[in-house]
Amino acid sequence: MPTIRAIADALGAVAEGDLDLQVTRAAEPAMAGPDDLALAMDLKYADGFATGHARAALLWPGADWQALGLQAAIFAPRGRLAMAGLTRMLDAGPQIAPGVHAMALVDPSAVIGEGAAIGPFVSIGAGVRIGARARIASHVSVAEGAVIGDDALILQGARIGARVVLGDRIIVQPGAVIGADGFSFVTPEKSGVEQIRETLGQRDHIAAQSWTRIHSLGSVTIGDDVEIGANACIDRGTIRDTVIGHGTKLDNLVHVGHNVQVGRDCLLCGQVGIAGSARIGDRVVLGGQVGVSDNIFVGDDVIAGGATKIMTNAPAGRVLLGYPAVRMETHVEMQKALRRLPRLAATVAALQKAVSKTGESD
Amino acid sequence: MPTIRAIADALGAVAEGDLDLQVTRAAEPAMAGPDDLALAMDLKYADGFATGHARAALLWPGADWQALGLQAAIFAPRGRLAMAGLTRMLDAGPQIAPGVHAMALVDPSAVIGEGAAIGPFVSIGAGVRIGARARIASHVSVAEGAVIGDDALILQGARIGARVVLGDRIIVQPGAVIGADGFSFVTPEKSGVEQIRETLGQRDHIAAQSWTRIHSLGSVTIGDDVEIGANACIDRGTIRDTVIGHGTKLDNLVHVGHNVQVGRDCLLCGQVGIAGSARIGDRVVLGGQVGVSDNIFVGDDVIAGGATKIMTNAPAGRVLLGYPAVRMETHVEMQKALRRLPRLAATVAALQKAVSKTGESD
Amino acid sequence: MPTIRAIADALGAVAEGDLDLQVTRAAEPAMAGPDDLALAMDLKYADGFATGHARAALLWPGADWQALGLQAAIFAPRGRLAMAGLTRMLDAGPQIAPGVHAMALVDPSAVIGEGAAIGPFVSIGAGVRIGARARIASHVSVAEGAVIGDDALILQGARIGARVVLGDRIIVQPGAVIGADGFSFVTPEKSGVEQIRETLGQRDHIAAQSWTRIHSLGSVTIGDDVEIGANACIDRGTIRDTVIGHGTKLDNLVHVGHNVQVGRDCLLCGQVGIAGSARIGDRVVLGGQVGVSDNIFVGDDVIAGGATKIMTNAPAGRVLLGYPAVRMETHVEMQKALRRLPRLAATVAALQKAVSKTGESD
Repeated sequence: MPTIRAIADALGAVAEGDLDLQVTRAAEPAMAGPDDLALAMDLKYADGFATGHARAALLWPGADWQALGLQAAIFAPRGRLAMAGLTRMLDAGPQIAPGVHAMALVDPSAVIGEGAAIGPFVSIGAGVRIGARARIASHVSVAEGAVIGDDALILQGARIGARVVLGDRIIVQPGAVIGADGFSFVTPEKSGVEQIRETLGQRDHIAAQSWTRIHSLGSVTIGDDVEIGANACIDRGTIRDTVIGHGTKLDNLVHVGHNVQVGRDCLLCGQVGIAGSARIGDRVVLGGQVGVSDNIFVGDDVIAGGATKIMTNAPAGRVLLGYPAVRMETHVEMQKALRRLPRLAATVAALQKAVSKTGESD
Repeated sequence: MPTIRAIADALGAVAEGDLDLQVTRAAEPAMAGPDDLALAMDLKYADGFATGHARAALLWPGADWQALGLQAAIFAPRGRLAMAGLTRMLDAGPQIAPGVHAMALVDPSAVIGEGAAIGPFVSIGAGVRIGARARIASHVSVAEGAVIGDDALILQGARIGARVVLGDRIIVQPGAVIGADGFSFVTPEKSGVEQIRETLGQRDHIAAQSWTRIHSLGSVTIGDDVEIGANACIDRGTIRDTVIGHGTKLDNLVHVGHNVQVGRDCLLCGQVGIAGSARIGDRVVLGGQVGVSDNIFVGDDVIAGGATKIMTNAPAGRVLLGYPAVRMETHVEMQKALRRLPRLAATVAALQKAVSKTGESD
Repeated sequence: MPTIRAIADALGAVAEGDLDLQVTRAAEPAMAGPDDLALAMDLKYADGFATGHARAALLWPGADWQALGLQAAIFAPRGRLAMAGLTRMLDAGPQIAPGVHAMALVDPSAVIGEGAAIGPFVSIGAGVRIGARARIASHVSVAEGAVIGDDALILQGARIGARVVLGDRIIVQPGAVIGADGFSFVTPEKSGVEQIRETLGQRDHIAAQSWTRIHSLGSVTIGDDVEIGANACIDRGTIRDTVIGHGTKLDNLVHVGHNVQVGRDCLLCGQVGIAGSARIGDRVVLGGQVGVSDNIFVGDDVIAGGATKIMTNAPAGRVLLGYPAVRMETHVEMQKALRRLPRLAATVAALQKAVSKTGESD
């Protein structure tokens, strides 16, 4: 049970009142009991204190904590940053017993780092290296030759493919698949898709075609401090590896195709899809359900709003929205004009009538 | 082998002919053998009887069953409702042997309800409570402190996170992940995304940023009679729980972000994505691939067509379509106008010419 | 270590230089060591030879291999096709030990084909039949009555449901779920969705509704030479089976609803969603994130660009783009016109002014 003083120190924040008060967990003001730390980083959450029983709270700067009936308060100038520190302090993390569980299968040639914890029904293949203090939850498979960094956390049922390399402090959420084969097929003759890419929609003739598989000889390399969401999929490269840079975070159900290169410190939100061989720069933020076409380039610091479909190269720093993606301002303008379009059509019809009359009267 | 009489009674439907005839399974008319119950809830399926060998059928109201060569018939005034009753009767369900399989790992502190069935390679954590008659298929993991209701059905490889609470009669399809960590990150300084949300696309300058994790201390609470689709993901809340109300159904690959509140009796179709902290009312129907932005509100009884992207609050009862979402009628009008737009532009060009001529001739 | 001669023979390609040179793996020219076969199917990749150390390469037709400093070269008239042959030769495939692993559970009534390999923590249900030389990786579940063809490859944690039938040479990537229950629910009274489908958006009144489940009695039948992507989901049919034809390939996170019929030799790219009872013809190519509405028909040889939402029947051979889907040419035209729309509106306003002036001056 940390004290208010300890929490404030850890957050580098100012605290007032009874700094020796201890709290057990965080809670919303209305739900907080006397041993909870209530969280109200904005005035709009202040109402909850009337119904809750908190004695201490993490508050917006300048809050009158005594008027809220509190005995102690911590002040957070940047609320969500304080949340990061606080939730980290209070997160017990998943229960994975230290050592290798009796019901885990570890190939004799695998090297398990000091202090690693490996749960039940885990399968670790030949030549695998697991970093120090790594934690691997139940039902995970780590295929031959894979390397997992120090302090990694691989959660339930995640699939780590052959020769995949994962950095230090990586977090892989349940069910994620890293290192499935790429989706790469070719037809003996030029396929309809190749024809259309050249002609933008015209096809000379349509011939039956069936698909021959291009195998994936590459693997996946992921940097340090990366997080991969639940049931997300990252395919292996064809010859070289698919790469995810340091500090990048992928949300649930994100799809990263073969040969894709994602830079550092990116955010790829839920259900984003990146087609094969696309390159994504550093600090790129893609909202939920964004799509990126194959073989294109998305520059550093690009931000794309939810469901944007990026179908051509995007220069660095561009802010995008829409299908197909355009600058966010352009999208807003286009949508406004589109909403007025039925009225515009009526205006043109009236004009046409007026002009034809004028013409007649000439 | 139920008789026609028994089936008609169970469906509350009228039957005619040899009510003692027995059937083993349901089939389409053309594929039906003599022991099958042919299903033809609409006249358009009647052709199949010519090639099939059914002796009994579930038919549209008023069908001339004798002319179809049948010996017995059940009449369903609302065909799909009859299908619900019939398929329920004939569904044997998954084979999961009663009791705890010898190859399942159950923490000694877990409480398993009477009549529960737990399959092989299942892992049940400390303090878990499993309801009476619950069935848990192979490879499922249930983490510490989770609670699963009576008559629950948790299918192969589903992941139930720590302290998740699932209601009675819940069905979780294979591979679903309930209780992964939320996707919540903050930068020490104001991030590009925060800047753009304020300015709608303008950025003063671009600074390097890296992401600090906000841990998820909350969990997930799901009501009774809910169904969660295969490989769907529901993230835990930051402080409070993510909540799914009674009777709500989620299809495959649906993504529900942290802190989301979904009401009762909703339908979330395949690949729907709901971003963090969104609130969804009761009886909301979201078609396939619909997206809902973070922190917004979707009112009761909203219906959104396939691939609608809801980016602002939607009032109760609204019917939506499009990206960004607008009323369905508006969308239809806008699309019509858009299809005529090239012609409209030509008309305007002609008008411009005519007017400039008129001007000249003045 | 194959020789250049052996590789050229296998690819049916012409080779020059020291045909007895042996190579161990494929590499990009810049990364290639002296024992690697460098791949440069296009002149634009030639630069890499300056920094790499390859002695042999697979090159574009007409390349001057001696000028590139090579001792041997193979020429590929159709590069990606050569890649298919070459990667197939060099792919060692996943390590799954022959026979049934001691930690696999196989029901005594299951029949395992000759030469099959079954990994650890695999569960095989009653009456299952596994083909000759099939390989099943760790953590896979195969439910009762399923049939898996010869030379199948089922990867880690895939879920094969009851009575599912998979063809010969099928590849199922990790985490795929074949045979979850369909998403099919009905309300006792006509639901809001049914009403809207009839009226295109109008609703008389809104009544509370809750959902009754239609169980899935059908299963899934998949042809030969099919590939199913990681975490993809294919639901079982209601009465008849959901069907995927021979040679069709599904990418990661694809969703195929109940009763769907997909033809032969189709490509369904990442995150495609096909709603219940839709029918897809042969050789159809759907780009990433494409959606297909329920109960519609997509004809043979249709190609849909990324994120196309197909909401009505699409005739054979049609090339589609957009939401809602239109012909690709129409989409390009509409988008051009839309981008010019703000300017068009200004022109109309100016015209209106001019005409009203002309009118006045009459």
